[in-house]
Amino acid sequence: MNKGKTFIISGPSGVGKSTVLHALLEKRKNLYFSVSATTREPRPGEEDGIHYHFLNVDTFREWIAKDEFLEYAEYVGNFYGTPKRYVDAAMIEGKDVILDIEVQGAIQVTSKRPETVRIFIAPPSWGELERRLTERGTDTPDKIQKRLLRAKVEFQTAHTYDYFVINDTVENAVNELDAIMTAEHCKPQDRMEIISAK
Amino acid sequence: MNKGKTFIISGPSGVGKSTVLHALLEKRKNLYFSVSATTREPRPGEEDGIHYHFLNVDTFREWIAKDEFLEYAEYVGNFYGTPKRYVDAAMIEGKDVILDIEVQGAIQVTSKRPETVRIFIAPPSWGELERRLTERGTDTPDKIQKRLLRAKVEFQTAHTYDYFVINDTVENAVNELDAIMTAEHCKPQDRMEIISAK
Repeated sequence: MNKGKTFIISGPSGVGKSTVLHALLEKRKNLYFSVSATTREPRPGEEDGIHYHFLNVDTFREWIAKDEFLEYAEYVGNFYGTPKRYVDAAMIEGKDVILDIEVQGAIQVTSKRPETVRIFIAPPSWGELERRLTERGTDTPDKIQKRLLRAKVEFQTAHTYDYFVINDTVENAVNELDAIMTAEHCKPQDRMEIISAK
Repeated sequence: MNKGKTFIISGPSGVGKSTVLHALLEKRKNLYFSVSATTREPRPGEEDGIHYHFLNVDTFREWIAKDEFLEYAEYVGNFYGTPKRYVDAAMIEGKDVILDIEVQGAIQVTSKRPETVRIFIAPPSWGELERRLTERGTDTPDKIQKRLLRAKVEFQTAHTYDYFVINDTVENAVNELDAIMTAEHCKPQDRMEIISAK
């Protein structure tokens, strides 16, 4: 059995990433969506190991000390991070792993694991991103402008990603993500065992 | 419209490359199969521009002098080569170009155009390649052994290719080639215009 690979998916708030990723999971079995660890309190309905791995601060700090995170950050007084252990267990089982993380986290992961494949999901245009954020109805106009600015800043790093997928339609974006994952498994380094066994 | 890309497909005799490429053309429109130029005489039924671009020796030498070939070689007294002009015309039209060439030609092309994507098609095993060559019924046992030896030598360079596709079934091989071509169009350098237009 081939070992799985890790794929980072980044993209601005409102780009439709979670819709695309859910559709990708329908199309492509054998995926593991990485569940983050956090020190914040569970909200009603949130389950440990499903929505987050809920850790206390001491454990989180211990895991940091033991280099147990692919990436982590502190955000409004709580820690958030990607534990290595679940990612590695999934890859050993032959599953591909999706890390839904933003640009700063992606830099941390690739500094530790340069073989990680990085995909940036972009909106077809800034006007369309603004329209999607407005339609979502969860943010004030001021907050939407802040998100747009942040998206444009993050976008400056898009050329450092391995792939650049434009979410014009969910179907196109899913097809491209699916193709990228298939293609990445055709790299010679992933098939060296087959080559050497010949 | 996006510019097309050039894909080199190499693989040993008997691996089933032409079956796979014909199926790929069914699945993926907008492909141009590069037609080689040659100085050998047309055989009955061969048409200029379809099976080969038939050139006289003087013209071929002139094209060499003008750097008009992506690669060329002499084989039993005749020249064979890949003219740049048809490849470039197709790419400008937005078509992806397939170059069905062997390992030496691939080295020449990528030294001129490092952006060319190289895909090696391999048999699932040497035993299976031998079986396919035998079943084809066109070669003597001695010739089959020579082809196998040549395949094993060419195979030593497979790790220098960008992708490695195993032709276990035509369907799998075509799916992988299709995915590779889609994924390659998601590279940021191919979408820089979209990025900069934002």
